[in-house]
Amino acid sequence: MDIFKNGLNIDIGGILSDVIPTVLQIGLVILAFIIFVPIGKKIIEKTIQKAGNNQKLSPGRVKTLEKLLINVFSYVMIFVFIIMIFGIFNIPLGPLLAGAGIIGLAIGFGAQGLVSDIVTGFFILLERQIEIDDYITSAGYDGIVEEVGLRTTKIRSFDGTLNFVPNRLLEGVSNHSRGNMRALVDIGISYEDNIDEAIIVLEQVCAEFQEDERFKDGPNALGVQGLGTSDVILRVVGQTVNGEQFGCERDMRKRIRVAFDEADIKVPYPHQVNI
Amino acid sequence: MDIFKNGLNIDIGGILSDVIPTVLQIGLVILAFIIFVPIGKKIIEKTIQKAGNNQKLSPGRVKTLEKLLINVFSYVMIFVFIIMIFGIFNIPLGPLLAGAGIIGLAIGFGAQGLVSDIVTGFFILLERQIEIDDYITSAGYDGIVEEVGLRTTKIRSFDGTLNFVPNRLLEGVSNHSRGNMRALVDIGISYEDNIDEAIIVLEQVCAEFQEDERFKDGPNALGVQGLGTSDVILRVVGQTVNGEQFGCERDMRKRIRVAFDEADIKVPYPHQVNI
Amino acid sequence: MDIFKNGLNIDIGGILSDVIPTVLQIGLVILAFIIFVPIGKKIIEKTIQKAGNNQKLSPGRVKTLEKLLINVFSYVMIFVFIIMIFGIFNIPLGPLLAGAGIIGLAIGFGAQGLVSDIVTGFFILLERQIEIDDYITSAGYDGIVEEVGLRTTKIRSFDGTLNFVPNRLLEGVSNHSRGNMRALVDIGISYEDNIDEAIIVLEQVCAEFQEDERFKDGPNALGVQGLGTSDVILRVVGQTVNGEQFGCERDMRKRIRVAFDEADIKVPYPHQVNI
Amino acid sequence: MDIFKNGLNIDIGGILSDVIPTVLQIGLVILAFIIFVPIGKKIIEKTIQKAGNNQKLSPGRVKTLEKLLINVFSYVMIFVFIIMIFGIFNIPLGPLLAGAGIIGLAIGFGAQGLVSDIVTGFFILLERQIEIDDYITSAGYDGIVEEVGLRTTKIRSFDGTLNFVPNRLLEGVSNHSRGNMRALVDIGISYEDNIDEAIIVLEQVCAEFQEDERFKDGPNALGVQGLGTSDVILRVVGQTVNGEQFGCERDMRKRIRVAFDEADIKVPYPHQVNI
Amino acid sequence: MDIFKNGLNIDIGGILSDVIPTVLQIGLVILAFIIFVPIGKKIIEKTIQKAGNNQKLSPGRVKTLEKLLINVFSYVMIFVFIIMIFGIFNIPLGPLLAGAGIIGLAIGFGAQGLVSDIVTGFFILLERQIEIDDYITSAGYDGIVEEVGLRTTKIRSFDGTLNFVPNRLLEGVSNHSRGNMRALVDIGISYEDNIDEAIIVLEQVCAEFQEDERFKDGPNALGVQGLGTSDVILRVVGQTVNGEQFGCERDMRKRIRVAFDEADIKVPYPHQVNI
Amino acid sequence: MDIFKNGLNIDIGGILSDVIPTVLQIGLVILAFIIFVPIGKKIIEKTIQKAGNNQKLSPGRVKTLEKLLINVFSYVMIFVFIIMIFGIFNIPLGPLLAGAGIIGLAIGFGAQGLVSDIVTGFFILLERQIEIDDYITSAGYDGIVEEVGLRTTKIRSFDGTLNFVPNRLLEGVSNHSRGNMRALVDIGISYEDNIDEAIIVLEQVCAEFQEDERFKDGPNALGVQGLGTSDVILRVVGQTVNGEQFGCERDMRKRIRVAFDEADIKVPYPHQVNI
Amino acid sequence: MDIFKNGLNIDIGGILSDVIPTVLQIGLVILAFIIFVPIGKKIIEKTIQKAGNNQKLSPGRVKTLEKLLINVFSYVMIFVFIIMIFGIFNIPLGPLLAGAGIIGLAIGFGAQGLVSDIVTGFFILLERQIEIDDYITSAGYDGIVEEVGLRTTKIRSFDGTLNFVPNRLLEGVSNHSRGNMRALVDIGISYEDNIDEAIIVLEQVCAEFQEDERFKDGPNALGVQGLGTSDVILRVVGQTVNGEQFGCERDMRKRIRVAFDEADIKVPYPHQVNI
Repeated sequence: MDIFKNGLNIDIGGILSDVIPTVLQIGLVILAFIIFVPIGKKIIEKTIQKAGNNQKLSPGRVKTLEKLLINVFSYVMIFVFIIMIFGIFNIPLGPLLAGAGIIGLAIGFGAQGLVSDIVTGFFILLERQIEIDDYITSAGYDGIVEEVGLRTTKIRSFDGTLNFVPNRLLEGVSNHSRGNMRALVDIGISYEDNIDEAIIVLEQVCAEFQEDERFKDGPNALGVQGLGTSDVILRVVGQTVNGEQFGCERDMRKRIRVAFDEADIKVPYPHQVNI
Repeated sequence: MDIFKNGLNIDIGGILSDVIPTVLQIGLVILAFIIFVPIGKKIIEKTIQKAGNNQKLSPGRVKTLEKLLINVFSYVMIFVFIIMIFGIFNIPLGPLLAGAGIIGLAIGFGAQGLVSDIVTGFFILLERQIEIDDYITSAGYDGIVEEVGLRTTKIRSFDGTLNFVPNRLLEGVSNHSRGNMRALVDIGISYEDNIDEAIIVLEQVCAEFQEDERFKDGPNALGVQGLGTSDVILRVVGQTVNGEQFGCERDMRKRIRVAFDEADIKVPYPHQVNI
Repeated sequence: MDIFKNGLNIDIGGILSDVIPTVLQIGLVILAFIIFVPIGKKIIEKTIQKAGNNQKLSPGRVKTLEKLLINVFSYVMIFVFIIMIFGIFNIPLGPLLAGAGIIGLAIGFGAQGLVSDIVTGFFILLERQIEIDDYITSAGYDGIVEEVGLRTTKIRSFDGTLNFVPNRLLEGVSNHSRGNMRALVDIGISYEDNIDEAIIVLEQVCAEFQEDERFKDGPNALGVQGLGTSDVILRVVGQTVNGEQFGCERDMRKRIRVAFDEADIKVPYPHQVNI
Repeated sequence: MDIFKNGLNIDIGGILSDVIPTVLQIGLVILAFIIFVPIGKKIIEKTIQKAGNNQKLSPGRVKTLEKLLINVFSYVMIFVFIIMIFGIFNIPLGPLLAGAGIIGLAIGFGAQGLVSDIVTGFFILLERQIEIDDYITSAGYDGIVEEVGLRTTKIRSFDGTLNFVPNRLLEGVSNHSRGNMRALVDIGISYEDNIDEAIIVLEQVCAEFQEDERFKDGPNALGVQGLGTSDVILRVVGQTVNGEQFGCERDMRKRIRVAFDEADIKVPYPHQVNI
Repeated sequence: MDIFKNGLNIDIGGILSDVIPTVLQIGLVILAFIIFVPIGKKIIEKTIQKAGNNQKLSPGRVKTLEKLLINVFSYVMIFVFIIMIFGIFNIPLGPLLAGAGIIGLAIGFGAQGLVSDIVTGFFILLERQIEIDDYITSAGYDGIVEEVGLRTTKIRSFDGTLNFVPNRLLEGVSNHSRGNMRALVDIGISYEDNIDEAIIVLEQVCAEFQEDERFKDGPNALGVQGLGTSDVILRVVGQTVNGEQFGCERDMRKRIRVAFDEADIKVPYPHQVNI
Repeated sequence: MDIFKNGLNIDIGGILSDVIPTVLQIGLVILAFIIFVPIGKKIIEKTIQKAGNNQKLSPGRVKTLEKLLINVFSYVMIFVFIIMIFGIFNIPLGPLLAGAGIIGLAIGFGAQGLVSDIVTGFFILLERQIEIDDYITSAGYDGIVEEVGLRTTKIRSFDGTLNFVPNRLLEGVSNHSRGNMRALVDIGISYEDNIDEAIIVLEQVCAEFQEDERFKDGPNALGVQGLGTSDVILRVVGQTVNGEQFGCERDMRKRIRVAFDEADIKVPYPHQVNI
Repeated sequence: MDIFKNGLNIDIGGILSDVIPTVLQIGLVILAFIIFVPIGKKIIEKTIQKAGNNQKLSPGRVKTLEKLLINVFSYVMIFVFIIMIFGIFNIPLGPLLAGAGIIGLAIGFGAQGLVSDIVTGFFILLERQIEIDDYITSAGYDGIVEEVGLRTTKIRSFDGTLNFVPNRLLEGVSNHSRGNMRALVDIGISYEDNIDEAIIVLEQVCAEFQEDERFKDGPNALGVQGLGTSDVILRVVGQTVNGEQFGCERDMRKRIRVAFDEADIKVPYPHQVNI
């Protein structure tokens, strides 16, 4: 804290304050920032992209680092800017922060959330819990990560909504973009139909899909998952390439339904005995 | 804190207190505020609007800044007013705030919420999470933002209710006004109908809507989303211009229903087998 | 704190305590309060009402200020009364509050809620979140505001219940008395009826209501809001004068139902296919 | 705290402890309490009742004050008793409370709830949120208040259960005994019946009840409150004397049903279209 | 704390430690406790029972005091035992508790729950919220109280489960064993039946039960409590002796059903209009 | 803390550190632990089992004590092991724990949960809330207790899952293994059947079961527990030996159903009136 | 903390800082880490695997230790790296952490969560609550453990999602991979069928499965678990090898259904009495 009060005040605030009027000083500082901040950002972008190509990092990782560094750079610049403005007016920041009991306490509590955000964000990045373009569920938000910042993570929901989530809320992250995903179809048959015949039909359908490149571990008919009031529920499960699970499930549903129709296996409509 | 006790007390409270009686002093202060506050607000409004035009900022951003600055200005004025009144009565504010243990503690806790509001509000504005006229969902409130203030955000619900939400509650903001939105229609057909035929009808309808300017990524028929007790659920999804998603969904629902009627695809009423 | 111990004790407690016996002193104090408190309240009421008329404030604002000032006045009087009684018995309040570690701590925690109430109440009034006679929803309470006090707000539910809500619970206030309100009617038609015909009937009804003075933004038929199991849901929405939304909805429901009957559009009773 | 250690120990503990054995001292103290406590309670009761008659206070207010003062008196007596017993054994209470770090801390936390109870209870009484015999809902308890004490409030549920609720839980009190109450009846008619005819029948019934003394603001037929799957819901609302709302609703329900039968308006049984 | 370190160490630990070996000392202490603890408990039981008979206390109160005192006695004995064992090994307890910063802090937090238990338990007993054999509901537990201890209360659920509930969880106690209880029967009749005739039948049944000694305030037919989809709900309410409410309700249900059968008032089975 | 730094360092760390190299020292310590820990555990087991036989403790109590002591022994050994290793490296533990402000604070908070676990566990054992093999419900876990440790309790769910529950979560323990349990069967009859006849049949079945040794308080038919839409619900309740309640209920359900069939009392299938 | 400031600064920072320029120093440090970290990890892996083979540890335990040690090694390396970089710039870490009041406080709170993670993780590993490849449920996450780290545990859900869960959330772990698991099938029969006959059929099926090697405690028919509106529910329970419970249940469901069909025991479709 002392370095700001001494160092910066002398270099910029102290010397200039006698010569140039305050308004001009502020103008110069703002000008300097308007010029240098975009240049700084460009340099970061270029550097990261070159480094990414050299090191053969995944594109998600490169994007994550690029956005993060620009985000950190922005915050540092804002921080420097505030200190310089304070310096021009000769207001010492140190005692203002640490001195007055109540104000200091209040700020301390306010800063607490900020520190939690940064600490959690640091570990999210360090442990590679999230990369940009990952599909995650966390803190009740569900969607594609657009940016992991120092303080907030931006998640794009599938309905197009952009969610700004403080990192401290991201306790426990469910990442749906790591490894193969399961495609699961539960389908009911009526009690009048023969279970074994239905399973044979399912196995024929599964055999077809096992040829499909999207399946890593071909779908298999598991058996009788449940006995409903009017239907016997059969389950089919397979492993698909990441991101293809929903499409595979849709295709399997349609194919099974058609195969059951062909095999004359009836739809298990609700039954009722009327007396 | 010291500057208030010393500076202001001397300038206004100290000198005058010997000459003019207290009541007159208060009257003068109130008069000064009644005159200067509206002038100050006008100046802010004008300045922002001119700056907005010059810098070609989005109208939402201009409105946000204008309302915010007037809001900050009001709070500063109230703060100054309270200090002047205290100065007239020669009550030192500093020790009252920091001195008495219990009162100070209690005020510190009370102020804590206020600091949280300001800190969260600061980041909401800095990270541009919210602009005025954005449609957002946060803290259980859902509507159009009318004002982002230093302490509270005003959200207008679609039923006309005006919600005053302290900024600290706005952890995690879902902003529905950033980018294209999804239009999604799930429609059921009966098990008696042919799934492939129904999808062809859907694709014809989708083709019509793909011409519609409101669609950025034309609607497509995805396939069999689910198998209900009496219906096969088909899904149609598209990307629309922001704000047009609800209208598009309504139009698609009507058009699909009509197309199904023409193609003689039946409504999937609940079925029951009576024994 | 010191002023109480010194000042008041000397003026009232100190001098009298030698001459008049304690009981008589207490009697005098009580008498003084019984006489002066109602007079003070009357003065406040009169002043506010006159000021309200002069300044052309809204009646809600005048009522809010009047009730608040009387409420503040009552609390100050109770506070003064307690100090005087303590003064008569020569019990110093200051050390009792700040001294004994445990008792002070306990009182500090107890006072914390009180400070939160006052701080929140202060901002509710300052930001004009609530005026008396506003219809609000907050903290799970729903009704008309009868009084915004220093510590509690009184909300009258529509069933006649009077709710006493500590101000600190009023985080996030939904005020239903600010601006026009929405009147919304969702009505179902059966799948057998023609959607376009039904919408034409709705538009005719809407045209009638657009002449109605209660509507600020005439009701319009939006289209197909949903596809139920046995009904196609159509939506009609309009903007009404504040407070008239429920009456308008009731009138629209009746008029639409009658118009549908005349146009022979059937009631969408649940359908079932029996096999 | 010091006054107990010094004062009481000398008067009772100090002097006697040399002459009379400890057991006898304890016996004397207990005897004194057995004799004086009931006398003190009787005196309080009598005084309050007389004062209540003179001041023409409401009987609820008199009961509240009477029960409260006896409750406070009991706690003070228990407190004095404990101090005397400690005094007989020459155990100094002050250091025991404030001294030992851990024990003091633990007691401080334990006392915190107690202080919250007393503070909340104080405001409940001061702001007259609750009187004895009021019907309230608070903290999930619902019933008639039997006693508002220093620490707990006793609420008698309608099923006869007696609830002991610590005052600190009574944040937000819904008092159903303040002013007129609403009597509301929602009644359905079938879609086959004419809405206007049904409303005329309702208005005739309302006219009968408007003569009823229990109604302060005679019941009126509001119109079509909702459109159910098989019924049109009509609403009748009125204001009744406090406490009569349930009886009025029961009478209105019966009268409306009979009137509908006479007017041949059918019961809206669920409808189903069988295909 | 000091008395233990000094006093007990000298009497037992200090003197003996030179003569008798440690193991023997421990043996002696254990032996002393095995002999004296049961004797102490017996003495407490006898004393309480005799005192209960003399003072004509209710049996519940006697049991409560007896179990409580034995419980307190056990805890004191364990406390003394631990101190003696520590004394034998010459480990000073005081500094161990108050000294080491972290350990002290941690123990302080651990003890906090214990103090809360004892404080809450103290008030439960003082305010007679619970006696043994009372039927209570609190903290989600429902059953008969078997013991109110210094730290935990034992509640026997009706299914036979024994619940150990820390006293601090018993915020807000619903005691079902204080005064008369309500017996309430809601019974439906079909819309085809005459409401007045049904109420006459109910009044006849009520008249029979009013003779029943279990009823303190004879059951009465209140009227039409609700209008269901297929039934008119009538309500009968009465006040019974505590504990008889469930039996009375069962008897009333049976008697009313039989009386309705005799009066040919039909069971209100769900109705459905088929189209 | 000091004893570790001084005592142990000198005995083991201090003397040896000059002679034998560090690695060898660590090896020796590990070897010592590998040898002595299993021996210690065996000794504890044997001692407890012998003591259990002598003192005629219940087998549950013996198992509880045995597992607990081994658990405590393990933790003490780990604690000693860590101190010895630290001693070998001459790192003083005391200042590391109490010294550095932030680290100390952080550890203090971390230790807080641990202390809560130990304190709660201590009282669970002291008050015999849980014995091994008891069937309990607590903290949302339901099953048979396998071990009550210093820090965690192991509960085996009936589906075979082993739950590790920190003791501090075990606030409020419902123990289903203390005393007789209730067997309760609710059975419906149709409204067409005679209630009295059905109760006679139930009483005959109850009489059969009253002979059953598993019943401690023979099952009795209580009467009409409820009036459903299509069924009259009758209740039968009895007290069984602990653990036999589920078997008894199953047997009673079957026997009652058979008896009703024989007495021609019909199954109360849902009724519906079709119009 | 001091050792870092003194020791490392002198060895690496202090000496080199005069000779080699800062950028080169950083480059050297980074190079050193890029070389040594992978080597360190390889060594750990090899050592653990060899030790695991020698000590005959379970493969799960070996994997757990291997992943954990690599995880700990990574964190230590990052920590050392940060200190070295700070050392190169001659920034003393100690005062930065402990010095500035507000920053220290904020970091302390941030670190608190980290300490909780490490402490909980330590006990999870010490008490062997989780091994890699265990199937657990904890903190709302359900799946196979892939890694237990110092700070986070990775759980792979069955749908393929990878969950990163901070260890402090893992309070109460349900481990489904310890011991035999229960296979439970509830199956309904209609009221028309004979309960005893159905149980005989169930017992025949159970006898078949008792031969199955997957069953450790052969499935048995327990009896009548419940009486539904239209079905008598029978329960079959058995103990299976861990992990085989779901497959066994599926096989039993199918076999029972087939056996019931052969024995002509009807499916308990919902019944309704139409009037």
